[in-house]
Amino acid sequence: MKISIERATLLKAVSQAQSVVERRNTIPILANVLIEAEDATVSFRATDLDIEVVDRTAAMVERAGATTVSAVMLHEIVRKLPDGALVSLTDDQRTGRLTVEAGRSTFSLATLPREDFPVMASSEYQTNFSAKAGDLKRLFEKSKFAISTEETRYYLNGVYMHVAETENGRALRCVATDGHRLARIDAALPEDAAGMPGVIVPRKTVNELRKLLDDDEADIAISVSETKVRFATPEIALTSKVIDGTFPDYSRVIPAGNTKRLEVDASDFSKAVDRVATVSSERSRAVKLILDEDKLTLSVNAPDSGTAEEELVVAYGDEHLEIGFNAKYLLEIASQIDRENAVFMFNSSGEPALVREGSDTSAVYVVMPMRV
Amino acid sequence: MKISIERATLLKAVSQAQSVVERRNTIPILANVLIEAEDATVSFRATDLDIEVVDRTAAMVERAGATTVSAVMLHEIVRKLPDGALVSLTDDQRTGRLTVEAGRSTFSLATLPREDFPVMASSEYQTNFSAKAGDLKRLFEKSKFAISTEETRYYLNGVYMHVAETENGRALRCVATDGHRLARIDAALPEDAAGMPGVIVPRKTVNELRKLLDDDEADIAISVSETKVRFATPEIALTSKVIDGTFPDYSRVIPAGNTKRLEVDASDFSKAVDRVATVSSERSRAVKLILDEDKLTLSVNAPDSGTAEEELVVAYGDEHLEIGFNAKYLLEIASQIDRENAVFMFNSSGEPALVREGSDTSAVYVVMPMRV
Repeated sequence: MKISIERATLLKAVSQAQSVVERRNTIPILANVLIEAEDATVSFRATDLDIEVVDRTAAMVERAGATTVSAVMLHEIVRKLPDGALVSLTDDQRTGRLTVEAGRSTFSLATLPREDFPVMASSEYQTNFSAKAGDLKRLFEKSKFAISTEETRYYLNGVYMHVAETENGRALRCVATDGHRLARIDAALPEDAAGMPGVIVPRKTVNELRKLLDDDEADIAISVSETKVRFATPEIALTSKVIDGTFPDYSRVIPAGNTKRLEVDASDFSKAVDRVATVSSERSRAVKLILDEDKLTLSVNAPDSGTAEEELVVAYGDEHLEIGFNAKYLLEIASQIDRENAVFMFNSSGEPALVREGSDTSAVYVVMPMRV
Repeated sequence: MKISIERATLLKAVSQAQSVVERRNTIPILANVLIEAEDATVSFRATDLDIEVVDRTAAMVERAGATTVSAVMLHEIVRKLPDGALVSLTDDQRTGRLTVEAGRSTFSLATLPREDFPVMASSEYQTNFSAKAGDLKRLFEKSKFAISTEETRYYLNGVYMHVAETENGRALRCVATDGHRLARIDAALPEDAAGMPGVIVPRKTVNELRKLLDDDEADIAISVSETKVRFATPEIALTSKVIDGTFPDYSRVIPAGNTKRLEVDASDFSKAVDRVATVSSERSRAVKLILDEDKLTLSVNAPDSGTAEEELVVAYGDEHLEIGFNAKYLLEIASQIDRENAVFMFNSSGEPALVREGSDTSAVYVVMPMRV
């Protein structure tokens, strides 16, 4: 293999690859990126056995071939090369080395044979459809904060992407929850997506996916089977196993009968919650919300260190209510609100609250109360 | 005590205090800042028993008095208050609480009695002089990278500030070394500093001092005794114990007879060292410098992962030389070079190299070679 490629193009491809590679590996070849050159195209492939990313890019291919080399090291080298440099990659089967040359710099890196690189088996996907990058970004970015980190509840360690019936017809829906809070985000159902099986997309895949979704207007090709999901642009393909488990029936958790309506400026609310939570040094900072007509009082009581209280002018017309929440959960939900106002719907101090943006039901959050 | 103070002024004072406070404390009051209000001045005092910082600022004092409160918590609260807020601090001796009020926020914080706060004994200083903040900044900032982190060699855990004889007369000199590299920085001797005893200023004090030296043209009052050093602006006074030990005779370490002179662009040199060091994953990355007429080759050989080589055009007119260094040490020294060119003076591959900026002898670095 012998190729020449512009530094910026190479950096982008290798950067996606090294991000998929797990830093602590017992299998040496999983630390490597597989570089394959053919015709005028080079592909860079990395995997952790659960996720595989392939980045295809144009390059001057002088001699076709393939080899594998440390993804992290190649990324570091390319990152440190001067902007605008032309980089040549040449592998020598005899010495088992890949030579990286740019300007007056020459690197000779240890390789492992391409035959040892585990390429993810290609699958039959039962559903193939296309969605705008902007829509996918909204679905995953607004829900991922609620993904559980408890390994024992592995079926909550991802975002549940599925087709749902809503009052406005069928939607492509993403749901994540850790049992304490829940996010449910809807987008218009793309053509051809109707038959899609529901899949739980793992947290790492959600994070890697973010890099494919830079351009809101780009079309992303999505393929789904019972065991795998694939997101692809013309350059990058991200294939991932899905979590083998059943996502719980979340609909029972979403309160339907909450009628006490609070409307508050999301940014003012966040800042006030953040301030009053300061006096508590505990990990789970409980904030009490005290609701009276058009007045919200936030209050924290930490016996050891002190108390804090702040008043906000809000829209609230129902009876007096006191309800406690984990400050972190309130802040995370409030930060998802794109419009100015967050709307909270309460029932009683012992029941979960529902949060949304104005009357928009395409993004709904639920948060469990805390005894305070 | 009852005072009103502008948020930005309060933030600056409390921020310096919380930085001195040690995060892990077994003595509760050391986590607190002592606030003392009298006439139209409020002072904020914090200590870790080795360093004490006092920040004095003007405020509306409605009722004089003093109390102590968690420095970190007060800092967090003030930081989160809106810009431009007027903050009032009121302490209630009866409840043992300090009330912090700003706009619609009210905080009530636990206090500890001012009597329990350890105020550093005031000392007789045998030398008092004044220096420009810019000069002090240069002396300490350019030397501190070489401070040792080995606790067993506690006498190297700081910067040795003393009066030295140089070829251009007497100078105020700062030296730091960890046995592998050394920095020696000189400044013109301030009036009245001649009789100053040499003192080892601890690393933490050097870091805290940085915040007093924002304005290059400001005059800093410096007081030195055998056991303490004090740096003061009209607003802030930083008092610190000095390290009780003898700084080794560093002059023997500085090579005098090195004649092989290499001149190289400091930035090009840094970037090249950083690049070639990438192939080595070890903590101490050895880089070999190969010198030939007007040519420097940097080379790294890491048996497991690969090799790297880069050529630089330099000014060198002596015989062929090969010498190895720790890449990290080379990078740290090169980053101190303010002018374009770094000058290296070598003797042999087994002897330390001397580094300076052009022919300027007011900043001199020494680095020990490594076998490669």
